Amino acid sequence: MKNTIGTNVTTTIYGESHGEAIGVILDGLTPGIPVDESFIHAQLALRRPSGKISTARQEQDPFRIVSGVFEGKTTGTPLCIVIPNSQTRSKDYAATRSLARPGHADYTAYCKYHGFEDYRGGGHFSGRITAGLVAAGAIALTALRQKGITIGTHIARCGGICDRPFGDLAADIEALSTMTFAVLDENAAKTMYARMEAIAAEGDSIGGLLETAVTGMPAGVGEPWFDTMEGLLSHALFSIPAIKGVQFGDAFDLLDAKGSEYNDPFYMKDGEVALRTNHNGGINGGITNGAPITFRCAVKPTPSIYKSQDTVDFFKNEDAKLEIHGRHDPAIIHRARVVVDSVTALVLCDVLEGRFGTDYFSAK
Amino acid sequence: MKNTIGTNVTTTIYGESHGEAIGVILDGLTPGIPVDESFIHAQLALRRPSGKISTARQEQDPFRIVSGVFEGKTTGTPLCIVIPNSQTRSKDYAATRSLARPGHADYTAYCKYHGFEDYRGGGHFSGRITAGLVAAGAIALTALRQKGITIGTHIARCGGICDRPFGDLAADIEALSTMTFAVLDENAAKTMYARMEAIAAEGDSIGGLLETAVTGMPAGVGEPWFDTMEGLLSHALFSIPAIKGVQFGDAFDLLDAKGSEYNDPFYMKDGEVALRTNHNGGINGGITNGAPITFRCAVKPTPSIYKSQDTVDFFKNEDAKLEIHGRHDPAIIHRARVVVDSVTALVLCDVLEGRFGTDYFSAK
Amino acid sequence: MKNTIGTNVTTTIYGESHGEAIGVILDGLTPGIPVDESFIHAQLALRRPSGKISTARQEQDPFRIVSGVFEGKTTGTPLCIVIPNSQTRSKDYAATRSLARPGHADYTAYCKYHGFEDYRGGGHFSGRITAGLVAAGAIALTALRQKGITIGTHIARCGGICDRPFGDLAADIEALSTMTFAVLDENAAKTMYARMEAIAAEGDSIGGLLETAVTGMPAGVGEPWFDTMEGLLSHALFSIPAIKGVQFGDAFDLLDAKGSEYNDPFYMKDGEVALRTNHNGGINGGITNGAPITFRCAVKPTPSIYKSQDTVDFFKNEDAKLEIHGRHDPAIIHRARVVVDSVTALVLCDVLEGRFGTDYFSAK
Amino acid sequence: MKNTIGTNVTTTIYGESHGEAIGVILDGLTPGIPVDESFIHAQLALRRPSGKISTARQEQDPFRIVSGVFEGKTTGTPLCIVIPNSQTRSKDYAATRSLARPGHADYTAYCKYHGFEDYRGGGHFSGRITAGLVAAGAIALTALRQKGITIGTHIARCGGICDRPFGDLAADIEALSTMTFAVLDENAAKTMYARMEAIAAEGDSIGGLLETAVTGMPAGVGEPWFDTMEGLLSHALFSIPAIKGVQFGDAFDLLDAKGSEYNDPFYMKDGEVALRTNHNGGINGGITNGAPITFRCAVKPTPSIYKSQDTVDFFKNEDAKLEIHGRHDPAIIHRARVVVDSVTALVLCDVLEGRFGTDYFSAK
Repeated sequence: MKNTIGTNVTTTIYGESHGEAIGVILDGLTPGIPVDESFIHAQLALRRPSGKISTARQEQDPFRIVSGVFEGKTTGTPLCIVIPNSQTRSKDYAATRSLARPGHADYTAYCKYHGFEDYRGGGHFSGRITAGLVAAGAIALTALRQKGITIGTHIARCGGICDRPFGDLAADIEALSTMTFAVLDENAAKTMYARMEAIAAEGDSIGGLLETAVTGMPAGVGEPWFDTMEGLLSHALFSIPAIKGVQFGDAFDLLDAKGSEYNDPFYMKDGEVALRTNHNGGINGGITNGAPITFRCAVKPTPSIYKSQDTVDFFKNEDAKLEIHGRHDPAIIHRARVVVDSVTALVLCDVLEGRFGTDYFSAK
Repeated sequence: MKNTIGTNVTTTIYGESHGEAIGVILDGLTPGIPVDESFIHAQLALRRPSGKISTARQEQDPFRIVSGVFEGKTTGTPLCIVIPNSQTRSKDYAATRSLARPGHADYTAYCKYHGFEDYRGGGHFSGRITAGLVAAGAIALTALRQKGITIGTHIARCGGICDRPFGDLAADIEALSTMTFAVLDENAAKTMYARMEAIAAEGDSIGGLLETAVTGMPAGVGEPWFDTMEGLLSHALFSIPAIKGVQFGDAFDLLDAKGSEYNDPFYMKDGEVALRTNHNGGINGGITNGAPITFRCAVKPTPSIYKSQDTVDFFKNEDAKLEIHGRHDPAIIHRARVVVDSVTALVLCDVLEGRFGTDYFSAK
Repeated sequence: MKNTIGTNVTTTIYGESHGEAIGVILDGLTPGIPVDESFIHAQLALRRPSGKISTARQEQDPFRIVSGVFEGKTTGTPLCIVIPNSQTRSKDYAATRSLARPGHADYTAYCKYHGFEDYRGGGHFSGRITAGLVAAGAIALTALRQKGITIGTHIARCGGICDRPFGDLAADIEALSTMTFAVLDENAAKTMYARMEAIAAEGDSIGGLLETAVTGMPAGVGEPWFDTMEGLLSHALFSIPAIKGVQFGDAFDLLDAKGSEYNDPFYMKDGEVALRTNHNGGINGGITNGAPITFRCAVKPTPSIYKSQDTVDFFKNEDAKLEIHGRHDPAIIHRARVVVDSVTALVLCDVLEGRFGTDYFSAK
Repeated sequence: MKNTIGTNVTTTIYGESHGEAIGVILDGLTPGIPVDESFIHAQLALRRPSGKISTARQEQDPFRIVSGVFEGKTTGTPLCIVIPNSQTRSKDYAATRSLARPGHADYTAYCKYHGFEDYRGGGHFSGRITAGLVAAGAIALTALRQKGITIGTHIARCGGICDRPFGDLAADIEALSTMTFAVLDENAAKTMYARMEAIAAEGDSIGGLLETAVTGMPAGVGEPWFDTMEGLLSHALFSIPAIKGVQFGDAFDLLDAKGSEYNDPFYMKDGEVALRTNHNGGINGGITNGAPITFRCAVKPTPSIYKSQDTVDFFKNEDAKLEIHGRHDPAIIHRARVVVDSVTALVLCDVLEGRFGTDYFSAK
């Protein structure tokens, strides 16, 4: 399987940055889920670049749902979304076509596709392709919400500035759902934004840390081996460009902890099994335990920077200097967080239908 | 797909800790790969517990290859390995059957399997199941070595003690291949081992950090979306019990770096494209770039500790105290590293045959 | 997996008959395959209805390739084709919405999708969806032809009239490639066509038998169990609407034969292993033997007829009479044959890349 | 995927005819299904050769369930069955190792596995491997029966002799479940058996037609494209050695029928939607309609016959004469029918869990 992920609910993406269109097919979702185009637009807007910390390219995402929705609801058959490209300035790229941008996929694409790849604007590797994931993810998020499952992601760290940790999850996720710059603490938001602007002004770029929480997941979902909840989520998350690390619960942050510190004690709360801490991120043995699923993604700095870089010309097989012009994001972390939510939603829909059947999201 | 992973080369595991046998089926590997049973034994020995930092249970792994090998070589048809269980003391577990061990899968297994699960010794969730992965992985490692691809993993950190970083990869991987306690720096090894013994003596447990390097991978392997090299590897790695975080290259360690610091410059070296640094762990845009693949796994502390813990009785739905007896590992990180190598080998064989065909490993 | 098929080369379809568009995503095909839009148009024309034996609806298929092709060649990334719908007269269907057409999917769709399905014109079950398969199949056929593999299908029987059997395969396949009404014998063609017109005039419909041959397949492709060549091909072929039976070689036609009659003797021909007969349809033990792959598909009569039929109203749960108006095909066998070729091509591309790697079709 | 089939419930087989063991892993079945070893033995006995129309080799199938069953019930984790081989007379095969048996997989195996295949007794291609399918199928049949779903197969035709068609399905399936020679009409059974003995006495072999019915399947299961019920069933059925054709409902038997004859009228029966005829075999648009699923499989004659045959020596690349000795079945159709039931059960369990969730078979 290549550009398709999922078993029961599948997501297939297509498109190149400067081709005619990009898009997505979402298949297998329970019939009857309401499809609210304005919510899809709102989610796409969260992904769209804005301000000095984003590319100047004004991406409009006037998507069309060309199948799979009838009378405002999912039919259960493949839902195809087409997002036409526009405002493409392809000649920005032709001159540097064979100069491998360090940190980017130009050279690896050449090794894999032998020069037949559409190199313009990153082609099929462009972050723009994630718009399809966000559009499909919006529908998945709606399905999950009907079952009381919510997802939220904030920028936990960027440029050395840290946001406050998650507090009241319900309130935080609600707040994040409409926040343009997803930092929970207002002062941290200002400092972080200023830091990002400064780095953009240098012609450089920055990454950081995204933290995600999922509430409302039933216990008992996931497999003990291979299709663990961690395995399924990370598999999907790593296809978000720039994500290079994924941890569930505290993992890398508690490398020296002892078992007596790391184990999450169970207790009875209002007649339900609950957990006092959540170092395991809501997952034991690959299976959800009913606590919130929490994970953090390390986002590397955007590779396209305006500073001169050493590289090679892979047509000529010789050393070269690269100076990038055109429009590039000095950071994508603030845009990537809605992609993380979307990809998470798609994976969870898939797993939940596998566990409880294809009518799960319609069941009362 | 549940206990099977892979597309072109598939691995299927089975077994419970205290059942009749555990094992693995490896399918789709190129016919003609030599199967050296003594190498499989050697790899299993690296996984086997030893000393005070491991369980006192003396696991013998007298495996039998019951299919898929003919005249000492892989046939290309399913290779099934059976590893009988022995020395099982199942009554250790019956008394605490409904007391959820914090950090362990007892409660989540109950939610998923409704009490029909074999609870003895962790059942299908037991780390013992990884013996099958190691046995299959040994054959995969042999196939890879025939194409010049090698894999090695060391304990980069445990109990606050750090090993030296990888240096000369060829030499380090060679050294690790026969090292019982996989720490490259001798002094670090001693201190670390002493620290682990001390924690074991407390009745507590410890995790840490594993670092892995793969040399010799050709460039141009992996997919841009979903089946990225990172996605495929992490999917498999997260099924190793206790692994809760995976990062490729530097990810979490360089959260505040700028693009100008993180990007790996390309240059020509002896007529080949090479990279000056490897912050991206040998992968750009989900596809190998020819540099070593490097990743680090966060290993949480073993959940079974001898200290008294708060928990619930999930049969009675009431709070309870848990005191674990029986035989348990105070640490599994030193045993897990050969599992990491094995799982990595299985994933790479799968991806390489997908890219280059099923005869890849026999080709000259 | 739902509307996606294949492992190495995947095909995903989407769309409803009266929605905005239908289409297909073809993914994983070797980069650099020439994409000739006029050939795709020619293939779509073979599928398009014409004359009195087809629906009066004039389907134009002005497709757009919106991704995956760059400078006239496949990029190797997902190739998405969008075929807009037009000329839809949806109100023909609303009146009979809850009357299950016998032999059609109205009732089963209702059971599966609970009334959320787009019922207009058969919705996602419409034969129109096969246009996407034909468009993708045209590209797959081009890839195969580069390796000397050709596919052809003729109407072996319809309305009791039989075509002559395949003779010189190379010549027959060449002739079929541009034939509008795919019957090899001219007289049989005339009689058969007249018979189909007569049945159409009655307001009834007819099916028949399609026979397919594939030349040039290398020996040694396919799996012994499950992913046998027969299993893979039939899996895909049965999704062509109206196909209800698939046989490889002579199967149902030689039910009483003895082994001494059915076995295909091998012999040496010009230094190559060859077969004197081909009762096994080019496949032994699930794997190609180098002889042409041959199979026959039983096509049931089109379910939509103009005669009054007994049925139920599944909203009211009561008996009902159905009189169908609108535009319907009295036969689809003459249109289905290009769909069979296309689906076969897609399966073979998938299997060949799995066997020989993703660059197979570019290799010299 | 190679020797694994299924998505939600998966079946993986392994083994060679003359290796140490053959077997199967059944994974994903609902926890809590009773596992009755005597029923598995009974099913294996139906598959075992007996009398003059079977090989003289006395296969004992003393299987061991080594995982996945606890206290007599499925755990929901992989259920591995090991069936040791015994009574193997391997030298029967060495002499003719490079002589391709016509109709058999020797030559295609050589093309695929390059001579590394275990050639003894058909190796991994041996019909003996189906014992694993029967063992796993017995458990699947038990799960289905708990939901009121039953499966039965009879020999509809062999050697020109026809059995009576299915009548009262409940009674016929019940009768078939313990019948050694699965022919419903007693006189037909005697004539057919005598015919098979006569052909065996000639040193020749025979195939025939198997007819299968499934009762109790809920409506609304299956996919409109690709994973149609027909596609899923045929995919699996074609891996049963000697099956070369599969038709659902009447297909090949009603090639000249008109729509008005072939369409199955719906009507209300006791408040439920029912069908007056079943030419479509219980499936419309790939999805079950609630009528019995019916299909017929064409079984080719066993390729191993005692008559002298023309062939090639594929080591020497020269023409050769083949005289087969050893023990071979003059017919396998009477043994294959329980394999058809088993494979069908495995596919249906997979599809039903995909539709209704993994607890489906335990639900009241």
